[in-house]
Amino acid sequence: MRAVDLIRHKRDGGTLDRGAIDFFVSGVTKGTFPDYQASALLMAILLRGMSAEETADLTDAMVRSGVRVEYPDIDGTPVDKHSTGGVGDKTSLILAPLAAACGAYVPMMSGRGLGHTGGTLDKLEAIPGFRTALSLDDLRRALATVGCAMIGQTAEIAPADKKLYALRDVTGTVESIPLICASIMSKKIAEGIGGLVLDVKTGGGAFMKTADDSRRLAESLVAIGVASGVRTEALITAMDAPLGRMVGNSLEVIESIETLKGRGPDDLERLSVLLTARMLMAAGLERDEAAADRRVRAALGSGAALEKFRDIVAFQGGDPRAIDDYDRLPSAPDRRDVTAPRSGYISVLSAEPIGRAAVSLGAGRGTLDDVIDPGVGIEVLAHVGARVREGDPVLRIHHRGGRGLDDAIPLLVGAVQIADAAPAPRPVVVERVPGFKS
Amino acid sequence: MRAVDLIRHKRDGGTLDRGAIDFFVSGVTKGTFPDYQASALLMAILLRGMSAEETADLTDAMVRSGVRVEYPDIDGTPVDKHSTGGVGDKTSLILAPLAAACGAYVPMMSGRGLGHTGGTLDKLEAIPGFRTALSLDDLRRALATVGCAMIGQTAEIAPADKKLYALRDVTGTVESIPLICASIMSKKIAEGIGGLVLDVKTGGGAFMKTADDSRRLAESLVAIGVASGVRTEALITAMDAPLGRMVGNSLEVIESIETLKGRGPDDLERLSVLLTARMLMAAGLERDEAAADRRVRAALGSGAALEKFRDIVAFQGGDPRAIDDYDRLPSAPDRRDVTAPRSGYISVLSAEPIGRAAVSLGAGRGTLDDVIDPGVGIEVLAHVGARVREGDPVLRIHHRGGRGLDDAIPLLVGAVQIADAAPAPRPVVVERVPGFKS
Repeated sequence: MRAVDLIRHKRDGGTLDRGAIDFFVSGVTKGTFPDYQASALLMAILLRGMSAEETADLTDAMVRSGVRVEYPDIDGTPVDKHSTGGVGDKTSLILAPLAAACGAYVPMMSGRGLGHTGGTLDKLEAIPGFRTALSLDDLRRALATVGCAMIGQTAEIAPADKKLYALRDVTGTVESIPLICASIMSKKIAEGIGGLVLDVKTGGGAFMKTADDSRRLAESLVAIGVASGVRTEALITAMDAPLGRMVGNSLEVIESIETLKGRGPDDLERLSVLLTARMLMAAGLERDEAAADRRVRAALGSGAALEKFRDIVAFQGGDPRAIDDYDRLPSAPDRRDVTAPRSGYISVLSAEPIGRAAVSLGAGRGTLDDVIDPGVGIEVLAHVGARVREGDPVLRIHHRGGRGLDDAIPLLVGAVQIADAAPAPRPVVVERVPGFKS
Repeated sequence: MRAVDLIRHKRDGGTLDRGAIDFFVSGVTKGTFPDYQASALLMAILLRGMSAEETADLTDAMVRSGVRVEYPDIDGTPVDKHSTGGVGDKTSLILAPLAAACGAYVPMMSGRGLGHTGGTLDKLEAIPGFRTALSLDDLRRALATVGCAMIGQTAEIAPADKKLYALRDVTGTVESIPLICASIMSKKIAEGIGGLVLDVKTGGGAFMKTADDSRRLAESLVAIGVASGVRTEALITAMDAPLGRMVGNSLEVIESIETLKGRGPDDLERLSVLLTARMLMAAGLERDEAAADRRVRAALGSGAALEKFRDIVAFQGGDPRAIDDYDRLPSAPDRRDVTAPRSGYISVLSAEPIGRAAVSLGAGRGTLDDVIDPGVGIEVLAHVGARVREGDPVLRIHHRGGRGLDDAIPLLVGAVQIADAAPAPRPVVVERVPGFKS
């Protein structure tokens, strides 16, 4: 097999068989399929597409480029959740301990912030001492003792994806649904899970802006999971406005803990409970949605989920005292409010400019070398649907000495729209893409 | 400007402006535009296309990656011919001395055999001692003294093309009309010519199989030449059967010399005279086609063209005695004939399998490292339209100890078709694509 023949075949709209895809992925992993040929093939894939079977084969080859983790010490089906990324989306911090408190095993591997969306690892590292760079042995030990862990990708997980993603990033080949799906799913499948709930965001603050695109992405992701023997389903959820009221790393940790304490904002709690209930069903722990919902609410109400969070913070080297004393978390010293330009109802709080404003304050990275300021962020004082009077504060900026304010303020002013009537409430879950029979 | 933004722009169907194309080509030349980004861009160009203006800008940037040769010592417009490649196409060897004998200056830079088509340099090097690796100073001196030269690309000529072609060859990005046109025309324009006649082959033995594709290629090439201030036109000529009767390096040298002696096969002589006449018009030496034709035929009839060939062979280190004594040229010791399977008229002699058969005998290269055997080749004993009886020899294989015969014979047997009636004669020149007013 020659790389150039494979490239020409895809270039002309052909289908790559399993052998060709293995040749490509193993070659990229070993360094025998040169970057200049890989990037030509990636561009041909982006422009010509891939069938469901090709995408599944690509995912599988990427999984096999590294290890698929096994958990000999636990008796149950490891389960995870993946979100395609949003603004204020801190559900991972809530779901892992909440599902573990319900008896699930959650080997959650997450990433860092990307563009205007935050990253779970960046949020967790706002907790003093919290280590996300754990080994697979640590991960297995965490599952056996606590029931969950929240760590970063290890080098053993889908190394082909790491190489391909770095290449895609500089060759204009990121925006391909098959490549995106294979990248997401290879890492999740390699975690060794048997169940997976996908939270596919849709709307102005999401990667996919339209319902159709989001559904296509969700269906493709679910199909890959099913093809790999993972009980997978997707919820398509709204990402027009920030989820919850906090955007920024330390602020989102606080809001997650508040939610685990039963004091979280409605939208965040509802989505967290729903996703966790679906995780229990994906793991085979519940077959009935109402029973799953009751079990999750019980774990939340009893404080068991909060205790799991405390356990995992301690296991991963973090300071558990921060859970009761938020002064132990980093904070930004300065505040600036964005106020309502007129009286009425908040009709729009655009997630994307709010996310970009948070990045400009230092909550995310403009380039890979940027250092994150965990204390800064944006607090939503009046959310969509709230009635405000002219001059009322709507958004509160937590900043450090004015850094990034010049960029953030116009973004935030432009993110707020006020109408004379309250907007129709938008459901959190827009649609469900099932992949297994519960 | 960032390479990735340029790639994304072309990927999404956008147009690259002059600045972007310069950034790409100068970056490739200097090594600051990495191969893995260049190949992604080349694939996007292949699949998305390029406008006429982009193609002209690309060509111009490739010319400027090296020198555009000047000829201070000659008083006239240098002119050249380029063929897109065929089987038995040895017109270059005839045209350069023939046009020079008519007073034109021909700084002909050629290439080597590619695929099933032969290369002018390979043919010339069948002449003992003939050197094709001349410097630009040698080239200028040859034009000032002899009036023509037949040499290979020098390092100063369009170095970006050399790098890009090497990359295209291994990334499945050869088959793009804009990239092909820019590659051909940048090298020709850099020769410092003011006139150019393109011989765009069409038919089964050509790179372009259909009249439409050939016309598109011809129009694109002519447009680039015109945009660069070169008086350019194209003739679209038939390449279904081999041109002339000889295929193979030494054999084609002999047939070229025979043509210069006035004893060449009809089709080859007719095309050579026509192309040379058009070269004289492109050079501004004649304004009237009939006058140009007379001037060319006079140079052929008087032996002046043959003397020019003798001069340039001597200038480039070759043995001029080979012109009168073909035994001084390499030859293959062995013969094998392919005979007519039945009586009738030769209706088809497929150029492509005949070219591939010649390559398998050793007349061309399967890989870049292959060494050419200048003596081997195929002689057409009965051409298209000839009446044959069953068992009559049609093709004569000149081979060396049977090398390549196993591949060659079935190709050649399959290349011959016999019909009950003589086929309608096909004109040599199918169409003309004009680019200047004569």
